[in-house]
Amino acid sequence: MNCIRFAFLPALLIGSFLNAEVKPALMPLPRKMTVADGALRIDPKFRVGFATRPEARLDRAARRMIARLSAQTGVPLASVPVTDTRLATLVIECPETVDRPDTLGESEAYQLDVTSSRARLRAPTVVGALRGLQTFLQLVVPGDGSFVAPAVHIEDEPRFAWRGLLIDVTSHFMPVPVIERNLDAMEAVKMNVFHWHFTDDQGWRVESKRYPKLHQLGSNGAYYTQDDIRHLLAYAHDRGIRIIPEFDMPGHSATWLIGYPELGSAPGPYSIIRTFGVYDPVLDPTKESVYQFIDGLLDEMTPLFPDAYFHIGGDEVNGVHWKANSSIQSFIRSHQLKDEGGLQAYFNQRVEALVKKHGKTMMGWDEVLHPNLPKDIVVESWRDRESMAKAARDGHPVLLSWGYYLDHLKPAGKHYEVDPLEGPAKDLTAAEAARILGGEACMWTEYASPETIDSRIWPRTAAIAERLWSSANASDVASMYQRLDRISDSLTWRGVTHQSNYAAMLQRLAPTAPLDALRTLGDAVQPLGIDGREGHHAYNQETPLNRLVDAARAESVRVRRLEEGVARYLASPNLSDEAAIRRELETWRDNHSRLESSLTASYLLKEAAPLSADLSRLGTMGLEALDALRARKTLGPDRAKGRLDALTLMEKPRAEVTLAAVRPVRMLVQGAAGGH
Amino acid sequence: MNCIRFAFLPALLIGSFLNAEVKPALMPLPRKMTVADGALRIDPKFRVGFATRPEARLDRAARRMIARLSAQTGVPLASVPVTDTRLATLVIECPETVDRPDTLGESEAYQLDVTSSRARLRAPTVVGALRGLQTFLQLVVPGDGSFVAPAVHIEDEPRFAWRGLLIDVTSHFMPVPVIERNLDAMEAVKMNVFHWHFTDDQGWRVESKRYPKLHQLGSNGAYYTQDDIRHLLAYAHDRGIRIIPEFDMPGHSATWLIGYPELGSAPGPYSIIRTFGVYDPVLDPTKESVYQFIDGLLDEMTPLFPDAYFHIGGDEVNGVHWKANSSIQSFIRSHQLKDEGGLQAYFNQRVEALVKKHGKTMMGWDEVLHPNLPKDIVVESWRDRESMAKAARDGHPVLLSWGYYLDHLKPAGKHYEVDPLEGPAKDLTAAEAARILGGEACMWTEYASPETIDSRIWPRTAAIAERLWSSANASDVASMYQRLDRISDSLTWRGVTHQSNYAAMLQRLAPTAPLDALRTLGDAVQPLGIDGREGHHAYNQETPLNRLVDAARAESVRVRRLEEGVARYLASPNLSDEAAIRRELETWRDNHSRLESSLTASYLLKEAAPLSADLSRLGTMGLEALDALRARKTLGPDRAKGRLDALTLMEKPRAEVTLAAVRPVRMLVQGAAGGH
Repeated sequence: MNCIRFAFLPALLIGSFLNAEVKPALMPLPRKMTVADGALRIDPKFRVGFATRPEARLDRAARRMIARLSAQTGVPLASVPVTDTRLATLVIECPETVDRPDTLGESEAYQLDVTSSRARLRAPTVVGALRGLQTFLQLVVPGDGSFVAPAVHIEDEPRFAWRGLLIDVTSHFMPVPVIERNLDAMEAVKMNVFHWHFTDDQGWRVESKRYPKLHQLGSNGAYYTQDDIRHLLAYAHDRGIRIIPEFDMPGHSATWLIGYPELGSAPGPYSIIRTFGVYDPVLDPTKESVYQFIDGLLDEMTPLFPDAYFHIGGDEVNGVHWKANSSIQSFIRSHQLKDEGGLQAYFNQRVEALVKKHGKTMMGWDEVLHPNLPKDIVVESWRDRESMAKAARDGHPVLLSWGYYLDHLKPAGKHYEVDPLEGPAKDLTAAEAARILGGEACMWTEYASPETIDSRIWPRTAAIAERLWSSANASDVASMYQRLDRISDSLTWRGVTHQSNYAAMLQRLAPTAPLDALRTLGDAVQPLGIDGREGHHAYNQETPLNRLVDAARAESVRVRRLEEGVARYLASPNLSDEAAIRRELETWRDNHSRLESSLTASYLLKEAAPLSADLSRLGTMGLEALDALRARKTLGPDRAKGRLDALTLMEKPRAEVTLAAVRPVRMLVQGAAGGH
Repeated sequence: MNCIRFAFLPALLIGSFLNAEVKPALMPLPRKMTVADGALRIDPKFRVGFATRPEARLDRAARRMIARLSAQTGVPLASVPVTDTRLATLVIECPETVDRPDTLGESEAYQLDVTSSRARLRAPTVVGALRGLQTFLQLVVPGDGSFVAPAVHIEDEPRFAWRGLLIDVTSHFMPVPVIERNLDAMEAVKMNVFHWHFTDDQGWRVESKRYPKLHQLGSNGAYYTQDDIRHLLAYAHDRGIRIIPEFDMPGHSATWLIGYPELGSAPGPYSIIRTFGVYDPVLDPTKESVYQFIDGLLDEMTPLFPDAYFHIGGDEVNGVHWKANSSIQSFIRSHQLKDEGGLQAYFNQRVEALVKKHGKTMMGWDEVLHPNLPKDIVVESWRDRESMAKAARDGHPVLLSWGYYLDHLKPAGKHYEVDPLEGPAKDLTAAEAARILGGEACMWTEYASPETIDSRIWPRTAAIAERLWSSANASDVASMYQRLDRISDSLTWRGVTHQSNYAAMLQRLAPTAPLDALRTLGDAVQPLGIDGREGHHAYNQETPLNRLVDAARAESVRVRRLEEGVARYLASPNLSDEAAIRRELETWRDNHSRLESSLTASYLLKEAAPLSADLSRLGTMGLEALDALRARKTLGPDRAKGRLDALTLMEKPRAEVTLAAVRPVRMLVQGAAGGH
């Protein structure tokens, strides 16, 4: 038996099971794991059983786990758990018998023991048992003769209590199935909060029976009925996921004002804003009728959402309409508020009292931070980590979202490095640091549609999920990426479309082009994030998201693997890496001639012609460097400099993508440059 | 303007639109089509409108078409049709206003006119309009600056009134979403009958409230509730698809007898049969209680299914239990029935009277054919075309299923060649031939799971759909395949999983192997059909279908394209084909070394090691031949013979697949052999 604390030795995870040929890829890494000899066979005789009569959602979760296990292995399994544990292969022990809403800070701990004859999952809470079921699923790999779960002893619980994903459903509406499959994916990586950004200048997405003009005039018919919401609440609860609704106020509120312009700070009329950014429409904090309206809205919405927390946004008020309104200005003076910031703090205090009256605890983005606010308000820091540390120092529970903005399309490794307790948080006292509840990955959807959103969230969010669940010492990026590739496949088996719609989107660009050549081009580029895209093109809510930039995945697995191969080869030349590198470079070199006729024939792909031509040049340039390295020659400083200058030019964004394929070629050219 | 009758010039479809860079791929080909200059833009201003208040399912169909068009193009479109046709881009004219069940032989005709400013769809029936909407969707391609529908005039209607797909849900149960997405796919290719094979020795899949032991003991909990069935009936009706239920009797009836053994011809007890084939359990036609039971079952089931036809199976009775039962034998003698065949004819007559009593017309497999049966009974010929011609001669309406058995995994081109009116039908009189209603593709699922079934049905069934809809003269196989590849992509956009789950299934074979190398291997092989598999391995209902044979697609697009390239190159050597052929052969040659470590590490992939090694040999052998051809040399007769002998060996099935990649290499070797 060898005992491994993954906190300290994560790389061992993928190298030490004795009887499984393929090693499990656990993500997030458990707190503690001991590996033993042997493995449990998953065959048609596999049965799940309960030691005691299960609580209803745990029973459903066990059935769902069985169905997934069957889908994942191809092995047909009895779908119904047995009550006689002597017949069970996996026995679940959980003392909770009554269904209740999940709460912040409840135990999510579980213990999982697998031997070659049996598995046992023990957890003090249902939600802990749900986490353990996901770990069991991840343990199963093809073994010697059948699928197996290797023998292990796992003791696990999360480092942070709040591990969230925000989805913006306003910029582009996301229908119910999109939310469902993302909840499925969250469950797989043990995330526990879904933050639903419901209202903004671009859309009001919740049916309101009390104020129907909100959704009727603010959504173009694309909104969730209250039945939809109840369905998704139950769906999330089944997966141990709390739902936090966000109704953004006083800014980002154009869609409140279309039907109810009297709530605004300017006369209106208002309409849905089709473009993206920060706009002027804002509620008028000086009118009592505004608070009456919010009170009525909370009266309708707070009973719909069982969670104790309620997010009121509070971000990005530009103050333009407040400055232009003389009555508002005199209110600021008469109430001795310092300025528009003071007016927003006044508004937040009033709204906080209403939220509390309806039995909820208020949350807001970091702009809400103000000395006069009650200390139980949760602050979500999106602008920087300093605001997070400040809020914690001021006594607020706090969440980190800065560093986890998915719409920037940064590599998973970048997000993985962002630890809420690093940086400014290191100066906090232990009591202050304990106020850091966790974090939230944020998926803003200006540049994401129901078709592309999964590929913007997954698999990268699994790295954030691990950062928030696992020990701070789980920091080996190479191990993370190896496991991420495997988790990515298992998300596909759950119906997440981040991989499965890629080929169809590429083929749509040029229906008659060879798919593998399209894939070579698509794999060579990476889309720009929001910063890069908003400057390029006059986007609005109706702009089709059907170009190469939309088809391309956020982080090219193929380029990353080539970089890894080149790094290995440069460190220690070997034939196997050389052959793989050569094959890829030759594929690139030859790709443009295969695509050329399609590039001119399709208006969707035309813009990619220079990229495709450069990819072929990259192939040639990389082969030149590889040949030099192989012959133990150098390119010489002049030629190398010329090549590197050309690479810099090729890396400039075009068609809203960058040519990620430049990176491994630059490594080769630098390696072959010589003279250093 | 050029007028094209596709019946005579199908190849022109893909070569003559002036303003579209990519040509539409219509499948099935319309009866008549005229192409004009210009094209209609599909942009966010595109609207659908009705000339008159639409019947409800047509309204739903129009909304569904808009959603598909939006998903297919990425262009956000208003989801609700307009009522003011002046605002509409596509105007639908259909006089039907009242929803009614579809009936055999009703008009499915439509006329579609597209100009650069407008489109107009006219149809006398709702179902005709549904067909026209699918044609419109297929017309849309990426054009010069946006998606467009080229200007056309189409007059279309089907050649055969019955264009069915049978799905066996007994051998492996197929959950509701599987049926839904296959109905979606059928709609896309204008198929109009879903034949639901509900009961067999391996499963009873319908909830019976009157005889609950049927589904309770006959399904392991895997059955459709009556609510499920009502849902799918409505789903199919919305797509202009009739549903024919089949309750197979008197044979294939083990699952009737588990709960009701008194209906059987042997004492029992009975159980679900887990293996596949023809078994002994059979109803006892001599007992009045059997007819009372069937009467009760029909009383419950016939109102559930609105269609006029009701299928009673009637196939493959082996007579073993009848022969062994002395009371049955004396019944045969006392009723002057010739033998067991005569007894089955007696049974069919009795059942037919019951089916008629409940207001339905009976259907059966060709074994039911007997002079004493009423002439309105529909005979479905599965054993051969002779039985079809005989039934038509005897006065029966008849369907052809022989030649359309999907589980044999024949190439689409083979099915495409099977014309119901060719072969024995050519000797029929016009009146007899008119009794041939059409045909049905049959998907028996001994070797298909919910995960693999789509890949066994699609895209090949689209070729059968075209055979049954389009003119007999639409027979250009090359044109069919070109269009099939495109339809295949559009089925993926509808959620059919024949393409999208391929990579995930391959990766599951060896989670850490390079996916593109797995794909190269998977693309090089083709799975054996039922004939090949049943001898290889002791399969039962619980055997996992998760091996290379299950992941591999029925017909390798990549091998077919290589064959096409080799054929062109041999006919007329050219650099472009040569480069493509060389690239593929080099990929094959190098693939085994990339997969070797994974092949031994995964129990699922181990069996494929010899295939992978042979694929590399094929690459080397093909390159040798290609080099010879390029150098205008020959291999010489001895070497060529040695190579061809080796190829013959390599083509033998292993791991239940054949190495399809042999075919293009054989073409090259034969081409380079010389001496002829």
